[in-house]
Amino acid sequence: MQTKIYLDEESLPKTWYNIQADLPSPLDPPLHPGTGKPAGPEDFAPIFPMELIGQEMSQQRTIPIPEEVRDILRIWRPSPLIRAHRLEKFLKTPAKIYYKWEGVSPAGSHKPNTAVPQAYYNMKEGIERISTETGAGQWGSALAFATNLFDLECTVYMVSSSYYHKPYRKSMMQVWGAECIPSPSPRTASGRAILEKDPNTSGSLGIAISEAVEDAATHANTHYSLGSVLNHVCLHQTIMGLEAREQLAMEELYPDYVIGSVGGGSNFAGISFPFAGDILTGKKKDTEIIGVEPAACPTLTRGLYEYDYGDVAGLTPMLKMYTLGHDFIPPALHAGGLRYHGDSPIVSRLVHDGIITPRSYLQNEVFEAAITFARTEGMIIAPEAAHAVKGAIDVALECRKTGEEKTILFCNSGHGHFDMTAYDAYHTGGIIDYDCPDDLIKESLANLPKQRG
Amino acid sequence: MQTKIYLDEESLPKTWYNIQADLPSPLDPPLHPGTGKPAGPEDFAPIFPMELIGQEMSQQRTIPIPEEVRDILRIWRPSPLIRAHRLEKFLKTPAKIYYKWEGVSPAGSHKPNTAVPQAYYNMKEGIERISTETGAGQWGSALAFATNLFDLECTVYMVSSSYYHKPYRKSMMQVWGAECIPSPSPRTASGRAILEKDPNTSGSLGIAISEAVEDAATHANTHYSLGSVLNHVCLHQTIMGLEAREQLAMEELYPDYVIGSVGGGSNFAGISFPFAGDILTGKKKDTEIIGVEPAACPTLTRGLYEYDYGDVAGLTPMLKMYTLGHDFIPPALHAGGLRYHGDSPIVSRLVHDGIITPRSYLQNEVFEAAITFARTEGMIIAPEAAHAVKGAIDVALECRKTGEEKTILFCNSGHGHFDMTAYDAYHTGGIIDYDCPDDLIKESLANLPKQRG
Repeated sequence: MQTKIYLDEESLPKTWYNIQADLPSPLDPPLHPGTGKPAGPEDFAPIFPMELIGQEMSQQRTIPIPEEVRDILRIWRPSPLIRAHRLEKFLKTPAKIYYKWEGVSPAGSHKPNTAVPQAYYNMKEGIERISTETGAGQWGSALAFATNLFDLECTVYMVSSSYYHKPYRKSMMQVWGAECIPSPSPRTASGRAILEKDPNTSGSLGIAISEAVEDAATHANTHYSLGSVLNHVCLHQTIMGLEAREQLAMEELYPDYVIGSVGGGSNFAGISFPFAGDILTGKKKDTEIIGVEPAACPTLTRGLYEYDYGDVAGLTPMLKMYTLGHDFIPPALHAGGLRYHGDSPIVSRLVHDGIITPRSYLQNEVFEAAITFARTEGMIIAPEAAHAVKGAIDVALECRKTGEEKTILFCNSGHGHFDMTAYDAYHTGGIIDYDCPDDLIKESLANLPKQRG
Repeated sequence: MQTKIYLDEESLPKTWYNIQADLPSPLDPPLHPGTGKPAGPEDFAPIFPMELIGQEMSQQRTIPIPEEVRDILRIWRPSPLIRAHRLEKFLKTPAKIYYKWEGVSPAGSHKPNTAVPQAYYNMKEGIERISTETGAGQWGSALAFATNLFDLECTVYMVSSSYYHKPYRKSMMQVWGAECIPSPSPRTASGRAILEKDPNTSGSLGIAISEAVEDAATHANTHYSLGSVLNHVCLHQTIMGLEAREQLAMEELYPDYVIGSVGGGSNFAGISFPFAGDILTGKKKDTEIIGVEPAACPTLTRGLYEYDYGDVAGLTPMLKMYTLGHDFIPPALHAGGLRYHGDSPIVSRLVHDGIITPRSYLQNEVFEAAITFARTEGMIIAPEAAHAVKGAIDVALECRKTGEEKTILFCNSGHGHFDMTAYDAYHTGGIIDYDCPDDLIKESLANLPKQRG
C-alpha cells in the first residue's frame, strides 16, 4: 500500500506555469494610487528587480526556473505527495485523499518556494539588502532562509505583538542571519509617527508594510519583497501543482477536487493553477477547484470584485480583486496567514469567472479537522493548512454519501510547530467562532477607492 | 547534482539488524538489583511485553518488522539521505558529507522508530495503557504519536521544570491524545514522597522514571516503555543505518566515517550498528565509527565500563555499561537528550572493544556547528543532533588537511523547532561551556553498586 509518492530530482520542474497566458482575456491592470492610471514597470522599479516586474506582467505560458534556484529548491523539493490512507479509513470514504506536504522545507511552509527566486533575482540585479514585513513570521523566516543563501542582508519588520508573544520565528530569522525588528519601530518615519501617538501600540501588518516599503525606498541597494498576492509570487508557487500533477499521473490519477486554503492566495494558486489551466485550455473540464477561507475574513465568499488598495493606508497600487475593503480589520485569528482583506488578482479573477469555488469555515471546526488529521495521519499542521484539511474532509464525506471513488488533492502548506499555543487554546475551549457580521463588511466596502480604472 | 537520495517504499527494510548475533562473545547479562543474579524474562514481564523481552535477549541476526509497523513507518520512512553539498563547499573539504534526516517524522526525531513497534507489541499482548517518563519531551511526544495509532492510552510523566518552561511538547502529546503530568505528581507514592519533602521541586528524570515504573506496576493492563539504552530500542533504530547503507550503495559509496550523537545511545546505535556489524563479520574493516557526546556528560570518554544501575535510586537492573555513576548529575544542558549517566550496554561494549571511538565537545562549539549547518544546509536542528554535525565538520576539516575524498555519514536525528530558546541563548552569549571536573566524576564513580556480577 503505497503512502508517499516521490518525484526524483531530475523531475523537479524546469519552468513555472504562468496562467495569465491562458486567461480568456488579460487581467485588469494595477492602477497607480495617485493618478488612478495603469501602473507601468517604472512604477515598481524602485522596490522590485526588473525580472520580477517582467514576470508580474508576462503573458508567456512557461517561465524558466534558473538553475541556481532549482539547486536550492532541491534541498527539499520535489516535496512528497502523501496518500492519507488512515484519514480515508477514519472517514469511511471511498474517495482517495492525497496531500502535497510542504512542511518539509527548512522554514516549514510553502513560502520558500517564492522567497528563493525573489532573493535570487535581487542578488542578480546587484541588490545587497531586502526589507519585508511579517505577521506571525512564516514569510519573514522564509525570506531570511533564502537571502542567507545568496549572501543578501535581510531586515524583517515583524508586527510587535507577534514579536513579543511568538518569539520563535524571530529566533529562526536570527539563526539565518536576518535582522528582525518589532514594528512599529523608531527606524522609519512611518514607525516613529505611530509610536509618537501611541508608544505602547502592538502594531499591525499594515504598519509593518509601510515600514518595510519606506526602508526599501530610502536605502541604497535595498529592495522590498512580498510573500503573497502578486502574480509573480503565485507564479513561483505553481511548482507545487506542477509536481503534484506529475505525482498523481504516476498513480494514473487526475484530481476530481483540488483544495487549498486562501489568505493572500499564493499557496492556493500554487496548488491549483496548473489544474485551472487544464480547464481554461479545454484539456479537462470536471475538476472542482475549492478555495477555503476563514469565516472571520470571508474575502472570496462575501467580498466584492472591485479595485482596492493592498494596504490599510492606501499607498500601494490598486488591484482588481475580491476585497472586504482596505480598512477592514479582521479579528485576531489563529490562522494569522489568512487575515487579509484582499486576495490575489488572478485567484479573484478565476473565482469571478467560475473556475474556482470558495468556501468558508469557522475556527473550531477547522481545529477539529486539524486534530483529526494529527490523530490519523500523524502530522501536526499549521492552522492555515487546517482550512484545506477541513475542505478535503467535507468533500470526502460528500463522497461517502454518493459512494463515488473521487480523487481529492489538497495542499498541506506547513507544519504547526510554532502554533502549539493555538492547539492549547482549542483544547481548553478558548477558540472563538467569529462569523463576520454583514454590517461590518458593508461599512468597510463603503470606503473602496473612488478611482476604479 | 543529486541532493536527496530516496529509497522507494518497497525498499523499506523488512527486518531489523540484531548486532548481538555478531558480537564475538555474548553481552554480560543484566543483574537483578536485589539479588545481584542475572535477571531473566520473568523479572521484566510485569512491565514489558514478551515480544520485547525476547528481542532484548535475542541472538538471532535479523528480526522481522511486523507489517502493521511498516505500514505506519511508511508515513515518513524510508527517510531521506541528503548530500550536504553547501556544507562541503563552505568547509572547502574534498570529503562527501551525507546525513540521514530524521526530522521528517511526525514527532520530529528518530524516536518514533521504536515508539511505534513498542506500542504495537503492547497492543498485541492486550495491554491498554502505557506509562513513560520524558525530560524535554522528545520521547513522550513520540510515544504519544505511536500509542494513538494503536488506540492505547498513554500517560507521560514529564519533568516538572520542562513541563512548565517548555510547554509545547506537552501540547503535542495532548494533540495525539496522551495525558501529560508534571513530575513529581501526587499520582504515585514516589511522587508524593518527594512532594512532601519539597512541594516546589522542579523534578528530575530519575524521579519521573520512578513514577512511570510505579504507575505501570500498580495498574492493570498497563506497561512501561523506555525510549533509549535497552537492546530492543537500539534494535528498532537500526532501520536508519540499514536504509542509509542501501542509499549510499545507490551512489556506489560506503562510508569511511559513521557519526552520531550519544545520550542513551539509541540514535547512535541505529545509524552505526549495521556498519559496526560489517566490521565484526569481516566484510569491511576501514570504517571509523564515532560517537559524539557533550563534555559536560562524558560517559564514553571519561566513564568506567562497569555494572551500574540505570536510575538514580538504584531500583532498575544493573547493566554492564560505561557509566559516570548512577548518582552523577550532569549540569543543565540544552541538549537535554544527551544528559544520561550511563549508555546502551551494546554501544558500551563496542567502545570497549575498540569498534567505536568516542569524542566529546563543549556546548558553544556545538551550537556554532548548528548555526553553520543552518546557514549552509537550511535545516534548523536539535542541539542533540548538532553534536553529530560538529563531529562531521571536524572529520571533514581533517580531510581538507589530508586532501582525502572520504565519505562521511552522520545521523541528523531531529529538528530544533522546540529548541529555539537555546539558539536565542547562543546568540546572546548565554551558553556555558561546562567541562566536567575530574573530582566530580571520581566522587560519583566511588558509589558504583557493590554487586558487580
